[in-house]
Amino acid sequence: MSAELIGVDWGTTNLRAFRYDDKGRVLESRRSNAGVGTVIGDAFEATLCELIFGWFTPETRVFISGMAGSREGWIEAPYVACPANLIALAARLVRAPSQRLREVWIAPGLRADRPDGISEIMRGEETQIFGALETREPALVIAPGTHSKWARVDRGHVIDTRTYMTGEVYALLRTRSILSRLINADDANPDAFALGVKRSLDNNSLLNLLFTARSEGLFEHIAPRSLASYLSGLLIGAEIAEGRAAQRLSVDAPILIVSAAELAAHYKTALEVSGFTKVETMDGEDAAACGLWRLAELKGPK
Amino acid sequence: MSAELIGVDWGTTNLRAFRYDDKGRVLESRRSNAGVGTVIGDAFEATLCELIFGWFTPETRVFISGMAGSREGWIEAPYVACPANLIALAARLVRAPSQRLREVWIAPGLRADRPDGISEIMRGEETQIFGALETREPALVIAPGTHSKWARVDRGHVIDTRTYMTGEVYALLRTRSILSRLINADDANPDAFALGVKRSLDNNSLLNLLFTARSEGLFEHIAPRSLASYLSGLLIGAEIAEGRAAQRLSVDAPILIVSAAELAAHYKTALEVSGFTKVETMDGEDAAACGLWRLAELKGPK
Repeated sequence: MSAELIGVDWGTTNLRAFRYDDKGRVLESRRSNAGVGTVIGDAFEATLCELIFGWFTPETRVFISGMAGSREGWIEAPYVACPANLIALAARLVRAPSQRLREVWIAPGLRADRPDGISEIMRGEETQIFGALETREPALVIAPGTHSKWARVDRGHVIDTRTYMTGEVYALLRTRSILSRLINADDANPDAFALGVKRSLDNNSLLNLLFTARSEGLFEHIAPRSLASYLSGLLIGAEIAEGRAAQRLSVDAPILIVSAAELAAHYKTALEVSGFTKVETMDGEDAAACGLWRLAELKGPK
Repeated sequence: MSAELIGVDWGTTNLRAFRYDDKGRVLESRRSNAGVGTVIGDAFEATLCELIFGWFTPETRVFISGMAGSREGWIEAPYVACPANLIALAARLVRAPSQRLREVWIAPGLRADRPDGISEIMRGEETQIFGALETREPALVIAPGTHSKWARVDRGHVIDTRTYMTGEVYALLRTRSILSRLINADDANPDAFALGVKRSLDNNSLLNLLFTARSEGLFEHIAPRSLASYLSGLLIGAEIAEGRAAQRLSVDAPILIVSAAELAAHYKTALEVSGFTKVETMDGEDAAACGLWRLAELKGPK
């Protein structure tokens, strides 16, 4: 492998770049808020070159995962059908047009067609998941976030996936709903969080429980400064209740959470409240960097 | 009863007033957008008198239900504990200070303390529900809306209640989420609506199904103009799945939906898709007007 390799995780709201040494170790990383949603027209190359200024030469090859491969991205990359491994992903890399970089390759997403006819999709998380599988052997990977992903995995393959709108629903309720007027701070309160998780696991009744954030606040059963934790617990608890039923998990299934440390810790707590006994975490950027490097290795030099 | 009686349903976003004849028939009604949320300081009397200009004399008595009795309202009225009937409600009317009207009475809300320690509350819907019970004998009343209320009823009493945040979650997702970019119209599509209802009933997995509005749109399984109906079906279906489990309803329980006609029709369809066989509807304003008149009768003249 040439040392002139750059990996890029380009989501809707964030752009992250990794510069590797010739063994695939990350020498340096950079990030910006120039997510795909902020890039106008064909400014993808210019936006990327601005972030990686000083890193690249005319020999540099770039591998990109995420929404840069969506219809609104740099160039549309397909969805590879599950079950799929990283080799299948590498075989469907799409080359993006570029003037200033030797090669730009964009990773496909993953698609899982459910028996009931619903298609589940992901773009970006698959590269993190395959990166994580280089060093771990969980039965399930969870990539929490705006649209939280659960992937059942087996011997390097993603078997099926589910997406949960947990993070986006939380943000909308936290900032724009009737609850936002009651919540006067975001103190992390572990008891309120655990209460929310437990109630969601016990009730399986999210639309009802969301309103209890209001009534429990009005009656001062939960302090206004702790309501954000309670709301977060309700939503993550509901996600876990849905996910364990949909993907038929036993409590001793090894689970790996791939994300930034703080969010991973919340999910780990919630999974343990739910009775899961083998929960580990891994940094999401490390996983992405590893997955992108492995994609480049599998693609090979041109 | 004096003919000089006015009933007022004063919610967070709407204000409705009814002028009665001496038999309790509504002679005239008026409405405005001057909900409690828009009234500043002690401007409640002035706001009301503006709406009912020409209707009142120094002899007029006014009975009000809804958020006018909340902490942010005209004067705070208590929550009466369930089980409760209209007589219990009338006994806890709170008199609001007024210069220009002979008497202003504000109805209390209802409160149901669940075995698991959660308090369910309502303010305004209880008066509609008791109004409806004057002429109907359902086992359950549903008052759909921003915060949809389910009330189990028996011989004029509300036994317990549940609130579902269905309408508010729909509005947030429809207008402010990633889904809002995909939805390019609000054509009512009965098939997409029924599909959403069925999927929620089959899966009990709302956070996951909400995201399918995106994937089903991307793959054009559902036309963009029909996604709003699908989303509405998912949410109303989830509410019904939660409600029938929480309140242990058999499919032949008589259900009365109290709301504006269009919303009532959606709920009736969804309940019938869910297998309920005895579903009726009643106009929400008629129910409120009837409940307010009965409250005044029970209070008696002063």
